Amino acid sequence: MLKLAVIGSGSGTNYLAIQEAIEKGTLDAQVVCVLSDVPDALILERARQHDTPAFHVDCAPFKTKLDGEAEQRVIALLEQHDADLVVLAGFMRLIKPALIARFAGRIVNIHPALLPAFPGLHSWKQALDYGVKVAGCTVHFVDEGMDTGPIILQKTVPILDEDTVETLHARIQQQEHLAYPEALRLIAANRLTLRGRRVLQTLPRDLN
Amino acid sequence: MLKLAVIGSGSGTNYLAIQEAIEKGTLDAQVVCVLSDVPDALILERARQHDTPAFHVDCAPFKTKLDGEAEQRVIALLEQHDADLVVLAGFMRLIKPALIARFAGRIVNIHPALLPAFPGLHSWKQALDYGVKVAGCTVHFVDEGMDTGPIILQKTVPILDEDTVETLHARIQQQEHLAYPEALRLIAANRLTLRGRRVLQTLPRDLN
Repeated sequence: MLKLAVIGSGSGTNYLAIQEAIEKGTLDAQVVCVLSDVPDALILERARQHDTPAFHVDCAPFKTKLDGEAEQRVIALLEQHDADLVVLAGFMRLIKPALIARFAGRIVNIHPALLPAFPGLHSWKQALDYGVKVAGCTVHFVDEGMDTGPIILQKTVPILDEDTVETLHARIQQQEHLAYPEALRLIAANRLTLRGRRVLQTLPRDLN
Repeated sequence: MLKLAVIGSGSGTNYLAIQEAIEKGTLDAQVVCVLSDVPDALILERARQHDTPAFHVDCAPFKTKLDGEAEQRVIALLEQHDADLVVLAGFMRLIKPALIARFAGRIVNIHPALLPAFPGLHSWKQALDYGVKVAGCTVHFVDEGMDTGPIILQKTVPILDEDTVETLHARIQQQEHLAYPEALRLIAANRLTLRGRRVLQTLPRDLN
């Protein structure tokens, strides 16, 4: 069974969607630990409510990256809990080479935009300001760039004339909560292969 | 009735989709002339088959832009035919300030990608190489940038694992042939307003 370590900075709605998929039996995986750089992040409380080991990792003195001692502490926690896959869920720091090397090809992220459009912060606001008519979310493998890794799946949502940042963000989040468990199911079933930057799906094992 | 001038460099499949929408009565407009920088472009032949005035405009010495004498000749042809709207349909040159100023807010283009992702040439190949899971097309107003103007509408298509540049390009073109008449209908009905970069739709007049 695929052992997931979830890392997030916020309320953990994507963590919750993953945990609920596991509990409903639609995702054959287990969350072995939840880590956060924010001591009072709701994601930690939610993890504890689901009897999942939850840890705050102090990431000072860095503000926008996971590096140095904090990075080593995260690697140690991931190893202690025997994590197979690192699942970034609203983690607001850039991941650095040491962690990427230790979990090569085994770190995934979800981004609230149709990458490569609108990387970085507040993507839904970027999309609204630009005036695109379609937004969405992207689940991707993590490389050393910001939101640049190979894409596992994307889901779209329309942008309506009456949308505000709040309504658009909420519509994208609904799709994130479907997309992340779906992507993890593909990984858990060992169905993804990489060709160049393209992430391709092999058939389920019993159909091959 | 909205008078369209279509400018293209290639086979004119988008011109044809627009012409057919007009002939079927689903687009209340008229193509008053078709211009091309390529003397033997199929778009010119197709225009003549539909009894539409068709002109080759020699754009030398420039290779990638419409400028200088050629730009003046285009402006003269557009004025002679009393064009209301300039419709770029596979025109492989950058439009310059003189034409943009003369037809301010009245030049539209279609691009085979979900802009702002994959501007420029061979967008479908860019999308395939990047590994996105969703592609599409964008109808937008033209400004002085390359594929940067305010977006009128976008349509999406999935990218399949088995896609080649040819199959993906064909799937995007099918949506282009729906998207362009649809965008022109909104312009013909005078239903678009600009707020910042956002193109918003007002209600049809009889519902207001």
